[in-house]
Amino acid sequence: MGKLFLVSTGPGDKGFMTQNAIEAIRQSTELVAYGLYLEYLGPLIADKKLHALPLGQETERVKRALDLAASGRTTALLSSGDIGIYAMATRVFELLHEVKKFSVDIEVIPGVSAIQAASSRLGALLGQDFCTISLSDLLTPWKAIEKRVQSAAESDFVIAFYNPKSEQRHWQLSKAKEILINARSVDTPVVLCKQLTREDEQITWTTLGGLDINQVDLLTLVCIGNSQTKIMSLKNKKWIYTPRLYLEKSHM
Amino acid sequence: MGKLFLVSTGPGDKGFMTQNAIEAIRQSTELVAYGLYLEYLGPLIADKKLHALPLGQETERVKRALDLAASGRTTALLSSGDIGIYAMATRVFELLHEVKKFSVDIEVIPGVSAIQAASSRLGALLGQDFCTISLSDLLTPWKAIEKRVQSAAESDFVIAFYNPKSEQRHWQLSKAKEILINARSVDTPVVLCKQLTREDEQITWTTLGGLDINQVDLLTLVCIGNSQTKIMSLKNKKWIYTPRLYLEKSHM
Repeated sequence: MGKLFLVSTGPGDKGFMTQNAIEAIRQSTELVAYGLYLEYLGPLIADKKLHALPLGQETERVKRALDLAASGRTTALLSSGDIGIYAMATRVFELLHEVKKFSVDIEVIPGVSAIQAASSRLGALLGQDFCTISLSDLLTPWKAIEKRVQSAAESDFVIAFYNPKSEQRHWQLSKAKEILINARSVDTPVVLCKQLTREDEQITWTTLGGLDINQVDLLTLVCIGNSQTKIMSLKNKKWIYTPRLYLEKSHM
Repeated sequence: MGKLFLVSTGPGDKGFMTQNAIEAIRQSTELVAYGLYLEYLGPLIADKKLHALPLGQETERVKRALDLAASGRTTALLSSGDIGIYAMATRVFELLHEVKKFSVDIEVIPGVSAIQAASSRLGALLGQDFCTISLSDLLTPWKAIEKRVQSAAESDFVIAFYNPKSEQRHWQLSKAKEILINARSVDTPVVLCKQLTREDEQITWTTLGGLDINQVDLLTLVCIGNSQTKIMSLKNKKWIYTPRLYLEKSHM
């Protein structure tokens, strides 16, 4: 029986990878990934057989990985961030459940997701209850997404929007902003994070009222504080944190 | 100016630590932690000065770490899981904001939190939008927590309850269960996870209807699927995953 590792490679910089992720890649002879992720891995992948399938071919990537592992080759399917958070792990189990023909031993290796890279890079944004919401309505009806945005806005979760926009998809983030502004102060801190931990990292500090949808793209994580979230400066560096103590606001 | 690393040591097993976490510990001469965490680190901490302060002395731990770093010693404040998720990072920024006297260079190193250890150990539970809610009402009024549980239940988030119970605190999880049962099927999968990745790991599979509050303690992460979450068996191993495709139920 072949082994398939589902490996989280973290936000970008190799230092954010876990030892288990590195060890799984070391043990594998075959690596399956979206091509662009692989360049970050350097010498670690030097003697591996690479199967780099482009964006959009997610199911093909999963099938390839399962086929390789089922044929007895130790294989790693790689995903940036945490492979279990808006990434490939769930697709592997969907296919296994549907097809039931693959004889593979699966091990899922978690890692640092974008929301954690953002929270730590910026301070301690996730100091209270938080949620993640994908604004992509490709596989989820907008009605269900909108209900989550509404609930999260009203019950004061710290929120991270994954997949906020794409080339074909613009209005969802505007709609989400509208819902949030109806439930929270326009001064609520918002931080746009792009390519965190990478050389071209971009951080944009704004507020709910000041949020410019045009500054957001597919690769941006949109982080929204709750009613308690605070911004502070320390030695000319800006930090954001959500204190543990929850002081109720009069509107609640 | 001294350096203070806020280091996430992950769920338990050292393999889940990131390279950055290990490197930060290597660079530090002083380690500040809750005593029990330290034993997992083995040789890595052999030549370090250890400051092990017991549970309940969180503020003292943060002050000690800031004092040590301000005196010029490279210091690591350690927390299991992700130090930014229901852990020490937010307390550091609270104190810095309040006191403003410490001259320290802060670096926060994220890591694998309990919810990610659970999702990956069990399959791909977090395949759709999820939230984390702490059921501790020590610093947050129960009214605010209850509102979040209600919102999350009704808008079909995958949910993880952190701090579900303590020796003094029992009724919050019963109340949360009651709210969830009013909003979701009694057959909704629930998994209780304790000491994941450690030798004494315990996983209990149940449902919302079958959830026995007595099986839960302070160290348990309570994981609750959404309306789509599925359970499957593969080579006699049980897996849970939440598919990407969201099929609306008639009650929504």
